[in-house]
Amino acid sequence: MEETKVVLADHEIPKQWYNIQADLPQPMSPPLHPGTGKPVGPDDLAPIFPMNLIEQEVSQERWIDIPGEVLDKYLLWRPSPLIRARNFERLLDAPVKIYYKYEGSSPAGSHKPNTAIPQAYYNKAFGVKRLSTETGAGQWGSALAMACAMFGLECRVFMVKVSYDQKPYRRMMMNTWGATCIPSPSNVTEAGRQVLADHPDSPGSLGIAISEAVEDAVCHDDSRYALGSVLNHVMLHQTVIGLEAEKQLAKISVYPDVVIGCAGGGSNFAGIALPFVRDKIHGKSVRIVGAEPTSCPTLTRGPFAYDFGDLAKKTPLLPMYTLGHDYVPAPIHAGGLRYHGMAPIISHLVRLGLIEPSAYDQVATFEAGVQWARTEGVIPAPETNHAIAAVVAEAKRAKAEGKERTILFNFSGHGMVDLASYDAYLNGKLIPYELPDAEIQRALKAIEGFPKP
Amino acid sequence: MEETKVVLADHEIPKQWYNIQADLPQPMSPPLHPGTGKPVGPDDLAPIFPMNLIEQEVSQERWIDIPGEVLDKYLLWRPSPLIRARNFERLLDAPVKIYYKYEGSSPAGSHKPNTAIPQAYYNKAFGVKRLSTETGAGQWGSALAMACAMFGLECRVFMVKVSYDQKPYRRMMMNTWGATCIPSPSNVTEAGRQVLADHPDSPGSLGIAISEAVEDAVCHDDSRYALGSVLNHVMLHQTVIGLEAEKQLAKISVYPDVVIGCAGGGSNFAGIALPFVRDKIHGKSVRIVGAEPTSCPTLTRGPFAYDFGDLAKKTPLLPMYTLGHDYVPAPIHAGGLRYHGMAPIISHLVRLGLIEPSAYDQVATFEAGVQWARTEGVIPAPETNHAIAAVVAEAKRAKAEGKERTILFNFSGHGMVDLASYDAYLNGKLIPYELPDAEIQRALKAIEGFPKP
Repeated sequence: MEETKVVLADHEIPKQWYNIQADLPQPMSPPLHPGTGKPVGPDDLAPIFPMNLIEQEVSQERWIDIPGEVLDKYLLWRPSPLIRARNFERLLDAPVKIYYKYEGSSPAGSHKPNTAIPQAYYNKAFGVKRLSTETGAGQWGSALAMACAMFGLECRVFMVKVSYDQKPYRRMMMNTWGATCIPSPSNVTEAGRQVLADHPDSPGSLGIAISEAVEDAVCHDDSRYALGSVLNHVMLHQTVIGLEAEKQLAKISVYPDVVIGCAGGGSNFAGIALPFVRDKIHGKSVRIVGAEPTSCPTLTRGPFAYDFGDLAKKTPLLPMYTLGHDYVPAPIHAGGLRYHGMAPIISHLVRLGLIEPSAYDQVATFEAGVQWARTEGVIPAPETNHAIAAVVAEAKRAKAEGKERTILFNFSGHGMVDLASYDAYLNGKLIPYELPDAEIQRALKAIEGFPKP
Repeated sequence: MEETKVVLADHEIPKQWYNIQADLPQPMSPPLHPGTGKPVGPDDLAPIFPMNLIEQEVSQERWIDIPGEVLDKYLLWRPSPLIRARNFERLLDAPVKIYYKYEGSSPAGSHKPNTAIPQAYYNKAFGVKRLSTETGAGQWGSALAMACAMFGLECRVFMVKVSYDQKPYRRMMMNTWGATCIPSPSNVTEAGRQVLADHPDSPGSLGIAISEAVEDAVCHDDSRYALGSVLNHVMLHQTVIGLEAEKQLAKISVYPDVVIGCAGGGSNFAGIALPFVRDKIHGKSVRIVGAEPTSCPTLTRGPFAYDFGDLAKKTPLLPMYTLGHDYVPAPIHAGGLRYHGMAPIISHLVRLGLIEPSAYDQVATFEAGVQWARTEGVIPAPETNHAIAAVVAEAKRAKAEGKERTILFNFSGHGMVDLASYDAYLNGKLIPYELPDAEIQRALKAIEGFPKP
């Protein structure tokens, strides 16, 4: 019997997160204050985040200890298994070995708790009593709801109204974990009321929801805001994924030729990728591939520029690949990948040539996801299907070139709460969608006059 | 850092299932042919099941090898983790240690694939090309759909119409795995057409769906029927759960005082319980507790009698605790526990005093389930909430008695596709329900004149 999985015992869980800032061959451009055009300092962020997380956001330390209370919660499902996808390999009939890191075993079904738990922990430690956040598809909001329940924090989630209506199960998850979930735009913030005054039927957007969540945090005592992607400390927390994978592969004396993750805001991708980027910086030969949707091709077609993280221009200016803060996402089903920007860390590494971006159409991704489900069992989240489509593309290339290849990819989550998108696919209701060139022109216009990174 | 989980490596997975028939202090009464009143023989079952599974159904061998191809599929998620519920223990503040075997990590989210996979394998090995089955809440239908996809079998699932309409996600899961899911009563079988002729708006029942699935299997070439609970070979396959748990507990030198599982048809309960029943038969001191709903109190209030497994009286007469084959379940949310009968093996062991039955109201079970989710993370399936309610009751008793107790329970599945029931609970729409005495009188009438076991 050949081994299918590599599991780690509890005591083998990484005790530190990896901070790539310490290994960057060139430093990143800093976030800028939109008013002054000067780098944002810790004090600028203090009304929004607790100081202990701000310190992580700007830290240059290579290794940052994972607190014991965070490890205790991680251990409920971590270390997550590393699984060899033999059945899928047989289907592809290509000279590839495919290993996947399965993040769907978390209680929320995705990688999001890897950062939700430390964020709740650090806020609690700082004396914060409630957290506000926004959520699009709902993965982040539900993960934060769970983490807040575990640490006894109140939690309020502003969920993009169209998703709130279409995805009632996500709202129910948050409620079960004790959080309040409010469709955005709402009447509970000034930002929401303004939108509703102009557009009573607004379906909402991530940009509006961010504005509401930030306002809600700032206007309540002992309250802060939490973000599930994009920022440095979020990427940091997710590195537990890649650090575990490295240990697991070392146990079977395997090193991947290619490391793949789907990329929306960048958090699950950073999680699997950053420890391998470190190796690459130190001379190791490994390709690291981010897979995004053709409908939201931030890394493959967007300019690298300073831009806002939200529509309302409330965030600092971030140096990143962007489709413009006024981007209105096409209604594709991988909600977690419909963000106009990309984590500055990931953007920087793409610029440096350390990460290869690629883009896949949603129809191709669901085709790959259904093939996966019928061979390997787990029904992947629509976001994860982008990583699987990239795996299929790598396998085809390996076959065409007649070269063996070992692939590692991050299976960011299962699709149990996203089955409506599979139903749409199976009934021929998903159509290919490529972002029109005019949208790139709009993006360039949106960042006109902003400082250049 | 204390260990939270005990994980087993792939090579530690049990290589044999445990067959309790070999250790029973008294033999079970045989199933009877309803026409002749004589014990049913293998040939009677041959049109419905493949002979290799029939052999398992009647086997007296203590250990039965798990085929390599079945192990290969099990290894996609098995051995499942054994987890110490420290956070829930702290909440209960009682002198108990709580360990749970987490079966929610399977691709279908429950323990059902443990038998779906070998059933698909043995049918395939016997030359069968398609399987028919019924499903109530949908857990079994989706697990069989997945197993059939993995072994290249066609799969047709008759799903009780009211569930089909209320739980579209289950149907979508089956479709994603390539199965056909038909609301029952349907027009594709004679049994269904008859019901529809009399009751065009029939909401369906498990009894009708079984009749349709059996007819569908018998009327198609190379086709057989598959059942997800009740029968001996199903209980056999599920023992992989308890066998793993024994190994895991042995690693930390722990032996439970109490073993708990929720009980509907009996399959997940048998899975965790039977290896410990064996110990008990051999003199070990351990209590083994089945937790059922007060709305469907088969073990706690039903008579032990010969009864049919279905409404249409198409099955053999089975010796079991029963609420009568004409029982119409109350619309409680733990759909997987709404079966009028109980596995003959479990029934027999209750009769012998080796298993203790208990019953919990759905409101109490959801209260326990929500407390669980907010401390341990995973949102349990409504069925699993019954096991958790039993754990809470044991903890309270231990506290009242001032006695330490180690509890092991089976966490049969997660509740990601059952969130609507949590929504109902959180909004005060679930009400307590105890089966009226008149229903027990009806049950006694339903079995009047049947042979006695």
